Amino acid sequence: MIRSKLISIGDEILIGQIVNTNAAYIGEKMFSIGIPVHKTVVISDEETSLLQEFEDSYQNYDVTIITGGLGPTHDDITKPALAKFFDDKLVIDNEVLEHVKNFFSSRKIEMPLINEGQALVPENSEVIWNSNGTAPGIWIEKNNKIFVAMPGVPYEMKPMVESFVLPRLIKKFSNDNSKIYLQKTILTTGIGESSLYEMFGDIENILDGNKLAFLPSATGVRLRMNVIGEDENDALVKLRAFENRIREKASDYVYGENDDTLQSVVGSLLRQSGKTLSLAESCTGGRISSSIVSVAGSSDYYRGGICAYANEEKIRLLKVSKETLKQHGAVSREVAVQMAEGARNLLCTDYALSTTGIAGPSGATPDKPIGLVWIGFSSSEKSYAMEFHFGNKREVNIERSSQRALEILRRELLKIKIKF
Amino acid sequence: MIRSKLISIGDEILIGQIVNTNAAYIGEKMFSIGIPVHKTVVISDEETSLLQEFEDSYQNYDVTIITGGLGPTHDDITKPALAKFFDDKLVIDNEVLEHVKNFFSSRKIEMPLINEGQALVPENSEVIWNSNGTAPGIWIEKNNKIFVAMPGVPYEMKPMVESFVLPRLIKKFSNDNSKIYLQKTILTTGIGESSLYEMFGDIENILDGNKLAFLPSATGVRLRMNVIGEDENDALVKLRAFENRIREKASDYVYGENDDTLQSVVGSLLRQSGKTLSLAESCTGGRISSSIVSVAGSSDYYRGGICAYANEEKIRLLKVSKETLKQHGAVSREVAVQMAEGARNLLCTDYALSTTGIAGPSGATPDKPIGLVWIGFSSSEKSYAMEFHFGNKREVNIERSSQRALEILRRELLKIKIKF
Repeated sequence: MIRSKLISIGDEILIGQIVNTNAAYIGEKMFSIGIPVHKTVVISDEETSLLQEFEDSYQNYDVTIITGGLGPTHDDITKPALAKFFDDKLVIDNEVLEHVKNFFSSRKIEMPLINEGQALVPENSEVIWNSNGTAPGIWIEKNNKIFVAMPGVPYEMKPMVESFVLPRLIKKFSNDNSKIYLQKTILTTGIGESSLYEMFGDIENILDGNKLAFLPSATGVRLRMNVIGEDENDALVKLRAFENRIREKASDYVYGENDDTLQSVVGSLLRQSGKTLSLAESCTGGRISSSIVSVAGSSDYYRGGICAYANEEKIRLLKVSKETLKQHGAVSREVAVQMAEGARNLLCTDYALSTTGIAGPSGATPDKPIGLVWIGFSSSEKSYAMEFHFGNKREVNIERSSQRALEILRRELLKIKIKF
Repeated sequence: MIRSKLISIGDEILIGQIVNTNAAYIGEKMFSIGIPVHKTVVISDEETSLLQEFEDSYQNYDVTIITGGLGPTHDDITKPALAKFFDDKLVIDNEVLEHVKNFFSSRKIEMPLINEGQALVPENSEVIWNSNGTAPGIWIEKNNKIFVAMPGVPYEMKPMVESFVLPRLIKKFSNDNSKIYLQKTILTTGIGESSLYEMFGDIENILDGNKLAFLPSATGVRLRMNVIGEDENDALVKLRAFENRIREKASDYVYGENDDTLQSVVGSLLRQSGKTLSLAESCTGGRISSSIVSVAGSSDYYRGGICAYANEEKIRLLKVSKETLKQHGAVSREVAVQMAEGARNLLCTDYALSTTGIAGPSGATPDKPIGLVWIGFSSSEKSYAMEFHFGNKREVNIERSSQRALEILRRELLKIKIKF
């Protein structure tokens, strides 16, 4: 198997000033061409560290991708370090020099002298053209080991990866690398990681030699399948069988795959059935509305929502009865039901969802703890509310309430049993 | 200098399915206590890789922080690998077991048997309590080398870092580490990175030997100051002077510092003045409401909002005139003003904000392009709307519209000039 390693250079990543999104981007691209990144390293711009990592790369990996440290200032040492490591020298590349000069003159800026250094490249290397900036990328090949250095600026690096690095790597390794790598993610919600794992029973049977990762988050557990095939057909057949085994076990907890979201899935179901939705949110405060509207085209099925944060608005807009509020309190089954019914009537929709709960950190009483949330549902056929306990983190409460509300709607739309 | 290393475990990071935000968070925290991360490594959940990295850590670093691989399923191998590396065995911790059991019973869910494994910890280790999940953290100390393992789920890991890991590390290394590292972030909005940089003039004068990073995002430019002092007083004096120079230059574009958000700042201003707010959102679809409600205690000043996604709701609930809608269209100054006034009247508040725009990707017309957004404001004194053009990305449009609406309110509350 072709092994690749990624080296990100820069203090700003180490001290958390920027998040290493480049690594995610490159990781995904390399995986897609069957040369997955086996290790990512982030180091400071110190020559010793760079040389050490280059040595490890040279010994243990076929492809090393380096980002950062290619700018014109004193702390940009990737090129000199590469030259030192490969016992090479830096020489001016005239085409790059021309490009750098043009870059400044076309912007009617005088070029600072320091920028001439951008045209320096290791003599035994190939330039990767930078259409969106001045620092060129570098491609070095020695004894079948490949080192690629690119700027850390995402919009300069990405076009280099797509137009040069990936095609070149595919060509280079097309003989060595006949295997096909496929990946797919199945999305579940409404069930915890360990319960899901238990439902799977004998995991080896399901895996059948493939890889499966359980990725829990506040919105549910994602199941990522990785499959390696001898050729494309083999990989597809394996993936399909693997997916079927998983879908069978995870059954109706599965709501989608890959980039789906619960709101996009629910949106498609509403559109298909020509039905409309409205919302009455209290503790979620507009979060459900906001996630529904994040889906392009949601105006086809979403009419709008009321964020009734104050009791008066529950009464005035949603027609929740004063008596009910007094008798049961705002966080109650009865109020959740009336809120959902109120929204459905007010906004004239087929379905409505409501939330009322104690998001925290204050507002709890002895019998209504932080994390208690009632989620209401209303359609022309029925109205009801369900009770949940989501723990004591405000942010998590809001997130999970929203997710559960959408999951209730999904199950209603598909006419499958509600079970939590 | 105390050297630390961070090991993130998980294929999902290597193949780019998730971005390694944990590394940024931990990098920042470690930097702030003077034990900066010198190297970050992301590896797959394979025992050999883990043992190799543990060996490198043990040889070359004082502190090693590990995230991920602590869950209950087959691919969670951090604990067994640690036990193997330290020649230790895994034993049940009864307190943790109790906690895991309670975690399930308090949510009225039966505990799957595999969760008992979560209570297994290396015999010669200390448990780091997980208040937000079931997997405990692990603290191992041997020959003055420290290994800390925590779950990869951010909301479980972060409280462990803040309440246990950082205080313990500070205590442990307080003698070795006499320099004081301080960091503070000043938050600006409504001005771009380069305009802000230009306003600063001579940057060296402002830096005066300290470090400053410009961190642009959809919500504004954050300015992160890093200061190193000989002792605490020296560091504080330096930081204060540095901050003053920056605040003077950035003037009223500064809305807060560190963990402030525009919604928390506006919330405090509303609470202080005893005023109330309502919203009428169209293109932002509940995003502003959701961000206001994300602040604990927002019920003190936030009455509620209408997400009037359909025109009929703008007319029926917000009393936008049919004529106006017909004459100017939903995305217009006139409708934005009437929406804000409508919300203020309907919800009886002192202030109201409204949004109406074309978030994209569809809905554009020749004179109303994607990204056109009108933001309305209404108080007892005046109502008006402002026009913005935020480009063609739906998500960014919604985010920036929300941020600008809150910034308008902030400037109104402080009675400072609106300038964009």
